[in-house]
This record gives sequence, structure tokens and C-alpha cells, in this order.
Amino acid sequence: MKVTVSRKAHFNAAHRLHQPEWSAEKNKEVFGKCNNEHYHGHNYDLIVSVRGEIDPETGYVMDVKVLKDLIKEKIENRFDHKNLNLQTEEFKNLNPTAENISGVIWNILREDLDKKLELKITLYETERNFVECEG
Amino acid sequence: MKVTVSRKAHFNAAHRLHQPEWSAEKNKEVFGKCNNEHYHGHNYDLIVSVRGEIDPETGYVMDVKVLKDLIKEKIENRFDHKNLNLQTEEFKNLNPTAENISGVIWNILREDLDKKLELKITLYETERNFVECEG
Amino acid sequence: MKVTVSRKAHFNAAHRLHQPEWSAEKNKEVFGKCNNEHYHGHNYDLIVSVRGEIDPETGYVMDVKVLKDLIKEKIENRFDHKNLNLQTEEFKNLNPTAENISGVIWNILREDLDKKLELKITLYETERNFVECEG
Amino acid sequence: MKVTVSRKAHFNAAHRLHQPEWSAEKNKEVFGKCNNEHYHGHNYDLIVSVRGEIDPETGYVMDVKVLKDLIKEKIENRFDHKNLNLQTEEFKNLNPTAENISGVIWNILREDLDKKLELKITLYETERNFVECEG
Amino acid sequence: MKVTVSRKAHFNAAHRLHQPEWSAEKNKEVFGKCNNEHYHGHNYDLIVSVRGEIDPETGYVMDVKVLKDLIKEKIENRFDHKNLNLQTEEFKNLNPTAENISGVIWNILREDLDKKLELKITLYETERNFVECEG
Amino acid sequence: MKVTVSRKAHFNAAHRLHQPEWSAEKNKEVFGKCNNEHYHGHNYDLIVSVRGEIDPETGYVMDVKVLKDLIKEKIENRFDHKNLNLQTEEFKNLNPTAENISGVIWNILREDLDKKLELKITLYETERNFVECEG
Repeated sequence: MKVTVSRKAHFNAAHRLHQPEWSAEKNKEVFGKCNNEHYHGHNYDLIVSVRGEIDPETGYVMDVKVLKDLIKEKIENRFDHKNLNLQTEEFKNLNPTAENISGVIWNILREDLDKKLELKITLYETERNFVECEG
Repeated sequence: MKVTVSRKAHFNAAHRLHQPEWSAEKNKEVFGKCNNEHYHGHNYDLIVSVRGEIDPETGYVMDVKVLKDLIKEKIENRFDHKNLNLQTEEFKNLNPTAENISGVIWNILREDLDKKLELKITLYETERNFVECEG
Repeated sequence: MKVTVSRKAHFNAAHRLHQPEWSAEKNKEVFGKCNNEHYHGHNYDLIVSVRGEIDPETGYVMDVKVLKDLIKEKIENRFDHKNLNLQTEEFKNLNPTAENISGVIWNILREDLDKKLELKITLYETERNFVECEG
Repeated sequence: MKVTVSRKAHFNAAHRLHQPEWSAEKNKEVFGKCNNEHYHGHNYDLIVSVRGEIDPETGYVMDVKVLKDLIKEKIENRFDHKNLNLQTEEFKNLNPTAENISGVIWNILREDLDKKLELKITLYETERNFVECEG
Repeated sequence: MKVTVSRKAHFNAAHRLHQPEWSAEKNKEVFGKCNNEHYHGHNYDLIVSVRGEIDPETGYVMDVKVLKDLIKEKIENRFDHKNLNLQTEEFKNLNPTAENISGVIWNILREDLDKKLELKITLYETERNFVECEG
Repeated sequence: MKVTVSRKAHFNAAHRLHQPEWSAEKNKEVFGKCNNEHYHGHNYDLIVSVRGEIDPETGYVMDVKVLKDLIKEKIENRFDHKNLNLQTEEFKNLNPTAENISGVIWNILREDLDKKLELKITLYETERNFVECEG
């Protein structure tokens, strides 16, 4: 029987939406207040979901404590209380939209998870805006 | 990489569940308190989700501000603070169950969205009762 | 040691804000969409809080099951799935604003509670609008 | 048009994670605090989702009151305020992980639901840990 | 200017409501399912609030990281994943009702906080039942 | 009868905790990650509560639409999607801790509210950290 196990985490960060190949006017037109050159910020709520068979010996698909520690080490330590545009390798040349952040997190975690597990990322930028990425 | 972008909105409305081809007794039996002839109401929480490829130039699947404005224009302005049975074309001859409301919203928004985007509607009638419609 | 015990409940209802001594124009101006003659509705979330001394024998200020049953009997049965303006004695001649609904509920419950307990009502009309009444 | 209808319920229970074929040391190592021999407990939030065609006569996929009563009779009455390891047949010989509890609930409810309906169980062990089972 | 600073934490525990000076019948009658001799459990959500003057140099009433660590050391480490009746000194001879648990937490934290700060404890036993203690 | 009316709003902002009269070392020691020179950010949830007598003619303490518009004009337009340290007059020389932000908001709104109304500000910096200011 396949089951999906999810763990909710969070991090706070500053960011700015900006496409360097565009003029300042076009950036302002497309990204509006999110283009503010002095940055703004969010509390990002992150849900990491892994799907696989229940291990008959432990009753676990994956130990949620191991998943919690993996999220802390690979995601929270990297992004929490950071300016995504200025202080992370991942967004130096990639616009930190919610879509791109979810894709980056998916790629980071995919490397450390058992290949037999399916992975899904849900990222809340605000209570009313969120994205989901399944790779 | 395909990503799903979701926006949460809400509207308040009155409604009554009623099947005009049935007797008053059968309506009362099937719909119970929801058949009350003087109506009752809900705070409907609505989540609209669109799935598609990330645009490499903007980093967006769809600008969530555009989605927010579309929901406001097409759904909130139509249904907010209305009596669904008496004051909307859509439910003059259709029972306003959560299932039917989600289907109506799906059909309305489908027309205005890029054909390349998949659409999903989640509608909370109460905190404990909700429905999802993918067309 | 004094402690406050709270119980959360809810009911759904239709209502309309209307002051019969005013003209239709003034009602529209003051109450806006809430004046809709065909009613609209809400999921009301209700929190009832009672404050008093802990009984040293039971460890209770008040048995929360008793409080739950009292709310069900006196409030939910009276207002749930009702049109407040048309189907309740309390709002036949009283505008069913959140403020007035909270005051009515406070008065109803005050009668059935031990005089030694303080009473507070919190009423959410929507997730973003709520009122508190302490009598 | 197919729609998914969901109902949220909850129950409180005590449990302990333990694999009787392992040594006390290995149990402690794998299950940590969850292996506590005197038990600990949770407020389990349960979402039951059924997917099917909307009945054109009622506008329902399934009457949510019927679903609510089914959950109460088959799940809440069985597990609420119980010690899962000691007081339920289902977990006498099955480790009560969130994964296994969701699978057990799926199997119990599957028997009583119309074969035409798809079934999904979502179970929150805490606000931050949850599982989903589709059979 | 006085401000209240609050920190939310949580712990999971098993408990049983029982008054040893009463008969089994009276315990069953008063505490119902909560008297289950094999225990049941909860996810307790705890909010600790301290009120005082803003320090003009730091802009803090109290460093919330210090408050977070204090809650972890004094409350979570003591009660998380424990059976309150069997494994804590505080409830060996005190009925672990939500009221009494909040009073015990208030007394524990009061000792470690600056005397100039007022203290309030809010404890959610379930999403619908909670208590507040101000000493 | 006095009642409290509350309205929930929100804004997103970047900030940095920093005391310019201190050394870089002391700032790092006291404010930790919050001292990051490149800023981080939050989704601030704001609840504005006003307490007063119910107007017998309208049934309102204060029209919540007026309160909503006031918050939008005076608070959201000023702080939303801004860098609090760099782009607001209020925090050019005041450390933008949650305590100080709540005090600033209290002072701004106090000026525009009827003197007969009491005012309280609740500000969530994250889901787990929040402050309350009553002036």
C-alpha cells in the first residue's frame, strides 16, 4: 500500500522579483511592488511530501524525523533569514518567484531522497498564494 | 518544469438546497436543514489552481495578480453577498450544492484561461466540508 | 487560581443589515452589499469563554462537555441554518450585526451559567471580521 | 463531471510505536520518544475524500451528512479517546504509525462506500506531520 | 509603552482524568471517556505571553528566542511524549485537566521570568477547547 | 453594552534588527540572524481592535468597512512590500522589532479614530511569534 508522508517547515526571507535583461520600466510594469529595489519579504511555509510503500517492519514510508532534519539541513539553513537575491547561489541568476523557489527546493531534496520515493513540494508565499511542484 | 499556482479568495452568500421536481416532504427528507425556505448562508473559501510550464523569462506560470483580478471580476463580483437561488443566473435552475457551485466556477474560469493551463477548483462550504473539481 | 475555559462552536445563517426607520437609499448607503434584500450568509464561528476558580476536587472551572451541550441547545439549535431576520425572535426588531448577535448570545448564555463565572463571547463573522462581548 | 467531496473529522488517542520483534534498544533507536512504554497521544485530524460523478437529481456526489455519520460510526466511535495499542483490534499486531492508521481507516471505510466512488484518507498526526492514503 | 510578546509552542502527551478519592462509577460519570484507564492523548498547543515595557535600547520586551528556549527547556522537555499521570511529578497527585496543566505551566515559568513581566498561559487541548491562566 | 470589533489585515515587508550605537559584534550577539545586513522578511498579519458602545441606530460600534479602508490607507499603503529600515520614516531611527512596529501602528491609527473608542493592535511576525499593544 502506497502512502504519502508530509512534513511542514518554514523559513523567512527577503527577495525582489527582477529580470535583468529588461528595462526598469518593464520590470516595474510586470512585477509591480514585488520589483521594489530595496526588497520585501515573506514567511515561507514549506510542505515536503514523499510517496512510497509502507515498510512492513517499521510501519514507516520514511521516518518523518529524518525528513525534518533533511529539510532543516538542506533548506532552512540555506534560505532562512536570507536575502534570496544577494545571499544564495541558487537565485543569483534566477528570479526568485514562488514557482522557481519550489523548483529549486525540489531539485535540492531530490538528490538526497531514496529514488523509490516520489517527491512533491508545496510552498506558501502568503496564506493566499501558494505553488506545488512535482518535478 | 510544470508547477501549480494557487490563489485563495472568498465570498459570502445565502442559498437553499431544493429540487423543484420533488415534493416538499422529499426535499425536507433529503436536504434537511439545508432546505429551509428562508435560506441560510456560508462564507465560501475558494482556491483556484492553474498548472503549467514556468515561463523562463518571468519565472511565472501565471501572474498571480492577474489570477486574483480574474477571480474578483468573474466570481466574487457575481456571487459575493448574493442569494444564489434568487439572484444568479447560474443557480436559477441548478441546485446550489457545493459540488454544483465548484463546477459552475470551473466552467466560468475555464473560458478566460490560456488553454495550455490545467484548472482545478477547491471550494470550502464550511471549514469541515469542501469539494474539488478538475472539470 | 482563576482560569478561563473556552469552547469553540459554529453555526451557519442568512441575514441582512437593515434599519427600518431609514429610507432605502440611506440603508444602501450605510450597509452597502450587506443590505441586499434577498439576504446573504455566513459561517459564524463562536467562542464561549467562562472564567472562574478551579474546583479542587474535579480540576475543572466548568465541565467543557456541559458548556458544549449548553451552546448546542441554546445557540446552535436556535440559529443554525436559519434566516436571522425572518426566523428568530431576537432579530425581528434588532439589526443582526455581529455586535448585536454577540450581545444577544451573551444575554442568552448568561442566564444559564453559574453567577460566579464571568462570561465572554467572541464571534467571527468572517475569518477577518470578529467581535468580542463581555456584557 | 467528477467532483471530490471531503469531510473533516477528528479523534484523540494514545499510542506507542513499537516493533515487538526488535530489542528494546533497537526500538528506542528507531522510534525515539515515540517508543515511550507509557504512551503519548495526539489529536488526529482526519479528512475523508470521496470522488465520483455529481448526481443530476440531487447535485450531490455523496450526501456529506451521510459521510459525516459514517465517519462517526466507523472511525470516531472506534478510536476516539482510546489507547490504540491496547484497546483496538486493528493495532494489537500492527504498529500504529500515521501511515498504518491511514491504511486501516481506508480499509474500514472502503467496505461501506459505493464501489463507484474513489476514496482518499488524509490524516494529520500533528499540525506539521500528515499522511495521505489512496489505497 | 507596555507590549505583550507571545510565543507558540506545542507538546504531545497522554493523560487520564481521574479523582482517586472517588469510586470508579463516579469517575466514569464525571469524566466520561476522559477517564479511560488506558489513557488517551492530545497535541497540546501552548502560547506563553509576557507583558512589560519595551527596552528602548533593543526594542524588545523580552528576546523571543530566550522565551522559546525557556519553553523548550522547562516545558517541552518535561511533558513532550510523556504520560502525564505516570511520568511527571506535577500530575502524580493532581488531575491533569487543561485548567490544572495551565496552572502548573504558569507556576513553572513564573520562577524563571523577570518579576517586572506579567505572565499569561494559553493552552489548547484541542482546536475547540482551550484555557487561559494569568496566575 | 460595550463590544470590541476587530479587523484582520496583512502586509509583507523586509527588515533588519540593528542598534547603530552598538558594535557589529554586539548586534550579532543580541539579534542573531535577524541582524543580517542584507535583510530578511515577513508576512505580517495585523489585527486592529476597537472597543466602544454599540450605536443603537446602526448596531455598529464602528463600520468595519471604514476600519478596513483606514488600515489600507494608513498602514498597508505605507508598509506593504517595503524595506522598513530603508523606505519608511518611522523606522529610520527606530529598530523595527515586532514590539516597535505594533507601537508605531497604534500611534498612527490612534490619531484617526474617535476618542471614545479604545484601540488595540495585535501583530503576528510569524505564526508562532506575535505581540499586542494597547498604547
